[in-house]
Amino acid sequence: MKELQELKEQFEKYLYGQIPDKSPENLYLPIKYILKNGGKRIRPLLVLLATKTFDEDINKALPAAAAIETFHNFTLIHDDIMDKALIRRGKPTVHQKWDENIAILSGDTMLVWAYKMLENYDAEIYKNLSALLNQTAIEVCEGQQMDMDFENRKEVSIDEYIKMIRLKTAVLLGTSLQFGAIVSRAGNENMKLFYDFGVQLGLAFQIQDDYLDVYGETTHFGKKIGGDIIDRKKTFLYINALQKANQNDKNRLSYLYDNQEVNNDELIDEVMMFYEKYHIARLTKKQINSYTTAALQALDLMTISNQEKSFWKEFALYLMHRSK
Amino acid sequence: MKELQELKEQFEKYLYGQIPDKSPENLYLPIKYILKNGGKRIRPLLVLLATKTFDEDINKALPAAAAIETFHNFTLIHDDIMDKALIRRGKPTVHQKWDENIAILSGDTMLVWAYKMLENYDAEIYKNLSALLNQTAIEVCEGQQMDMDFENRKEVSIDEYIKMIRLKTAVLLGTSLQFGAIVSRAGNENMKLFYDFGVQLGLAFQIQDDYLDVYGETTHFGKKIGGDIIDRKKTFLYINALQKANQNDKNRLSYLYDNQEVNNDELIDEVMMFYEKYHIARLTKKQINSYTTAALQALDLMTISNQEKSFWKEFALYLMHRSK
Repeated sequence: MKELQELKEQFEKYLYGQIPDKSPENLYLPIKYILKNGGKRIRPLLVLLATKTFDEDINKALPAAAAIETFHNFTLIHDDIMDKALIRRGKPTVHQKWDENIAILSGDTMLVWAYKMLENYDAEIYKNLSALLNQTAIEVCEGQQMDMDFENRKEVSIDEYIKMIRLKTAVLLGTSLQFGAIVSRAGNENMKLFYDFGVQLGLAFQIQDDYLDVYGETTHFGKKIGGDIIDRKKTFLYINALQKANQNDKNRLSYLYDNQEVNNDELIDEVMMFYEKYHIARLTKKQINSYTTAALQALDLMTISNQEKSFWKEFALYLMHRSK
Repeated sequence: MKELQELKEQFEKYLYGQIPDKSPENLYLPIKYILKNGGKRIRPLLVLLATKTFDEDINKALPAAAAIETFHNFTLIHDDIMDKALIRRGKPTVHQKWDENIAILSGDTMLVWAYKMLENYDAEIYKNLSALLNQTAIEVCEGQQMDMDFENRKEVSIDEYIKMIRLKTAVLLGTSLQFGAIVSRAGNENMKLFYDFGVQLGLAFQIQDDYLDVYGETTHFGKKIGGDIIDRKKTFLYINALQKANQNDKNRLSYLYDNQEVNNDELIDEVMMFYEKYHIARLTKKQINSYTTAALQALDLMTISNQEKSFWKEFALYLMHRSK
């Protein structure tokens, strides 16, 4: 989609123009560093494309798009500290390149700065946007805490897992679309449906992420097959396998996740053998399809032109049909 | 001031009623813990008293006061991580009682929650309050970063030091007063003067903090004389002594701050000897008086009743006449 590339460039030009050229350097250089370190810009593109659905002028959505992207990058800086991640998009994470204190504080500043960019809008729009960001930001924090809590638990239910990915990932996609709708003063019903469309699509996308970690192609970005298994992540696949397994297999699966000394290749092979035994791939694909269908149903209920519906359907399938 | 105590109780009752009783526990228990762990509640009292200056009804200022206190406690949680502080108000800090990840994330949630409490106001007031909070929050982060940067520097100028305490501490006091003024729809001129009054008073208060660390009475709270010297803090007193000292004394002062093995009692004695030699106590008191005077001048320019001016003057002097 060539127009997406152009829109991405337009957005990045705007975003880079907004980065404060201020001191103290140790606060502002990390902000510049992470915002200029690329990424797919999916969330701001959702804001801009959602605005385009209701309104010719997408320029007025640029501050809202920049706010969403800045908020998202705040979560990346703080999550990377918590996960002790060393690399983000091929470069050292902020707390690795500088230190943890600087990463905490530049993250805090980005969170506030996301709100600040919304000041471009009049009071009514400002309150609608920032109240939605308030709710979503709290949900994202709740999701991240649930994710951390899951690491220390033996079992996690499927419902809990779905709640976690909804909060941690999906609501921000719904919020991005609703941001675009708010900026272009779309009606309440369309706003709500757009939000649902984004959340359901986000759930599908996140479960697909779990799926592709095991069944995707190895990529030139070097993400290896089975990385989640090596990290003992309680993914949608693992949680379902654990639930479906007989007592013997359950014990073995738990043992594999509890013991770090198992050889990585053997670990992946054995876990995948259980996934095969319990038809986890098929079950996961079914779940992905179910959320994608729910997303498209919400889309279909919207009162927008068929041309717009086709565009969003195509966009959704484009997002879902990646193989890595 | 008995009425202050009653107002504090009224505020705390409101604040405690707002604390979300939600899961995940690891996110919300730390928030409850720090908010219920007391403190002088100076900032929310400033919001409420400022509202009272313009308006009979202080109830409508309670959400704004709670927002300021929540924001302030967010900064305490994150600052305590950065400073590796073990104790806050006589109890373990959040990252000590739980862990750093939980402290980062519950702090983030409190920052967002501060904005969320402002949703109680209509769109115009909401935008005025939250835009002021945006600006102030960014300044507080800048001040905290400057403070951390100073630790790694040999010399800090007096101007830089004043800028740091203005950002890190004083602007939030000005913001508290302006919050009260915004809620009660006071005019722009009074708002600005109230803000200035708070900032100047904040500067006086912070420099007095440095002064009392050396020349205050030892307290029953157990804060020992010379704690800042033992911590090698570059206080207003130390920075001025370093600037006034001859080359020999300057080298010696730097040496004392650079070498952790010097015995604490000897360290305090020797640094205080230099303070005496260069009349640092007198100079510091002069500076405190100068900021207090500037605060009272801003107050005097306000178009409020003389009774109100007297109240605020008394309140300012009450804050400044503590001996510990």
